[in-house]
Amino acid sequence: MLDRIKRNIAKHIELTDAEFDYFASLLQPRHVTRRTSILTPGQICWFEGFVDAGCLRVYCTDEDGGDQILYFVPEDWWFADIQSFVSQTPAVFGIDALEDSDILLIDKRSKESLYLEVPKFERLFRIMTQRALVALQHRMIAYMHQTAEERYLEFKQKYPNLEDRVCQHQVAAYLGISPEFLSKIRRKLTLGVLSV
Amino acid sequence: MLDRIKRNIAKHIELTDAEFDYFASLLQPRHVTRRTSILTPGQICWFEGFVDAGCLRVYCTDEDGGDQILYFVPEDWWFADIQSFVSQTPAVFGIDALEDSDILLIDKRSKESLYLEVPKFERLFRIMTQRALVALQHRMIAYMHQTAEERYLEFKQKYPNLEDRVCQHQVAAYLGISPEFLSKIRRKLTLGVLSV
Repeated sequence: MLDRIKRNIAKHIELTDAEFDYFASLLQPRHVTRRTSILTPGQICWFEGFVDAGCLRVYCTDEDGGDQILYFVPEDWWFADIQSFVSQTPAVFGIDALEDSDILLIDKRSKESLYLEVPKFERLFRIMTQRALVALQHRMIAYMHQTAEERYLEFKQKYPNLEDRVCQHQVAAYLGISPEFLSKIRRKLTLGVLSV
Repeated sequence: MLDRIKRNIAKHIELTDAEFDYFASLLQPRHVTRRTSILTPGQICWFEGFVDAGCLRVYCTDEDGGDQILYFVPEDWWFADIQSFVSQTPAVFGIDALEDSDILLIDKRSKESLYLEVPKFERLFRIMTQRALVALQHRMIAYMHQTAEERYLEFKQKYPNLEDRVCQHQVAAYLGISPEFLSKIRRKLTLGVLSV
């Protein structure tokens, strides 16, 4: 179960076997079934996590009970409510499983020990956070000036094959549109493709 | 000119005088007048920067020539096109001065030396990037489900007094609405306040 996370880390920093083993000893593996809540808004996010298999979503719920999806978390992605984890304050976001999933969690105290024992992890998480920030900057700008159709095409590019794995209303909640409007876009694109 | 950046850093990491002096020796101070372009989309972003006085904007231009403002950079804020800086690829975003500004720049090679010589800076930039990511996550979610009026009120909270310093069309470009629509919102809010 540790192969994927080892490869994920190796993209950014080089670890000795002893350093990786120490990191691995801090991880808590969990199997969660579909629809299990991993974090509820208002709870303290005690973990940062990595998806080894399956798919989660990070979402928030507005006053009207509607969900917005901040991002999907398929295999090889990391997740947390960062602010809640860093400051140990109530989470704004919730996290739950869209599929049966295998995840690895690290708690706050272990993460702090990790930074002290193996400072290279500061670098890893700086780089990963930068990448997440860049991706979100592009999504923000896209949201400001792209049509829903263009955003849908970007979603498909960013998350290849994910559309076949999650419900239409989850994709709509990520795009910030209604499921009915997403259906219309899909029909239009299918007809467009068929008419070529 | 170094007092502000020293205090900014001291919020997150402790440096010895020698460490700060080394960092300071890597900084390139610049005075830029209003409307000066600091980075044009398509150029390589060779710097990360800090605003000591004044205000910049980080923006991008869509195919129709319209600007979207990713964020404003008043005093005490950092700026860069992160992806361009990290990977030395052409910038997507442009950066220019909305006011006469005093800025401090650090180039890519100096930043890498800094990480090697004073690894604490990995921690500083990890923390700052996390904070930027959290702020952008909230803005993204707000954008997905808030009205333009609510977003305008959030802008005022996030950037106190900035509205008096930048043109209305810049604020509109940040909110993703037309200047005319922003005028309407302002009039409505003013009337609302007057009628209380």
